[in-house]
Amino acid sequence: MNIGAIRILGVDPGLRNTGWGLIHSQGSRLSFIACGSIRTETGVAMADRLALIHRELTRLIEDSQPEEGAVEETFVNRDPQSALKLGQARGVALAALALGGLKVAEYSANLIKKTVVGVGHAEKDQVAMMIRMLLPTSEAKTPDAADALAVAICHAQHRAARARGAA
Amino acid sequence: MNIGAIRILGVDPGLRNTGWGLIHSQGSRLSFIACGSIRTETGVAMADRLALIHRELTRLIEDSQPEEGAVEETFVNRDPQSALKLGQARGVALAALALGGLKVAEYSANLIKKTVVGVGHAEKDQVAMMIRMLLPTSEAKTPDAADALAVAICHAQHRAARARGAA
Repeated sequence: MNIGAIRILGVDPGLRNTGWGLIHSQGSRLSFIACGSIRTETGVAMADRLALIHRELTRLIEDSQPEEGAVEETFVNRDPQSALKLGQARGVALAALALGGLKVAEYSANLIKKTVVGVGHAEKDQVAMMIRMLLPTSEAKTPDAADALAVAICHAQHRAARARGAA
Repeated sequence: MNIGAIRILGVDPGLRNTGWGLIHSQGSRLSFIACGSIRTETGVAMADRLALIHRELTRLIEDSQPEEGAVEETFVNRDPQSALKLGQARGVALAALALGGLKVAEYSANLIKKTVVGVGHAEKDQVAMMIRMLLPTSEAKTPDAADALAVAICHAQHRAARARGAA
């Protein structure tokens, strides 16, 4: 496994807001590159909203050339209709990353919190504080951009741990 | 609305099998062009399976240049985990069609059956028989290719009806 410097793109997919966070990782050293959110309007046709998510992620990958991607596993609640909509945004994000040539890993929300904060049921505030500590120059202006940085950090730490294990 | 000759791409999305059917429509006259199925293997990573669906649909659109797309609304059962998986394939299909420049319509399974056969709870066999009657040269070798032709036929008939209503 490559433990040299790589760029990781974290994505927290959602139909209205898809957060993304780009970090640089070298071994256990992390640094912030950029983050943001892709918003789609509710009045627009579903296919066009999904096409926008694909197009923006594809442009981001072309511009920033990350090597690996990490996507938050969508929380599946009890409403199949909501799960379907979340799934649509998530499918587009996963496909866009793979089509962009990225190796894609998936992490559950609990594992992300446990990795970043140390406990699986951490509050949003604790996650935000840890992101500021680990990536001091980051400025996540939306919750989904912060979540995307968290999944990128989670992936960086897991791949570093795997590399140590394999060494 | 264009009631001249157009090509319609019908899609029945699914993670394992995504059916597609391409027809030619001029007013109420229909003819078969092609149909098939995009299969993905269960052992492959989710992002790569979804990327394959996107890539194959994009290639199909580039090769056959359809003007409009019609997608079957995914049946949402009681299991949110299944709904999420179906949603992922469906999202990729909707985005691929919109990114290919197609105007995309969505139809529920019941409306498709009602339009093609005349009753909303028609059996698979009745739908298959009507497809053979309406598109005599068609050869749908898989159930999802047949379903994709059915959604394409449904869209052709609805747009013809809308054009008559608007005339």
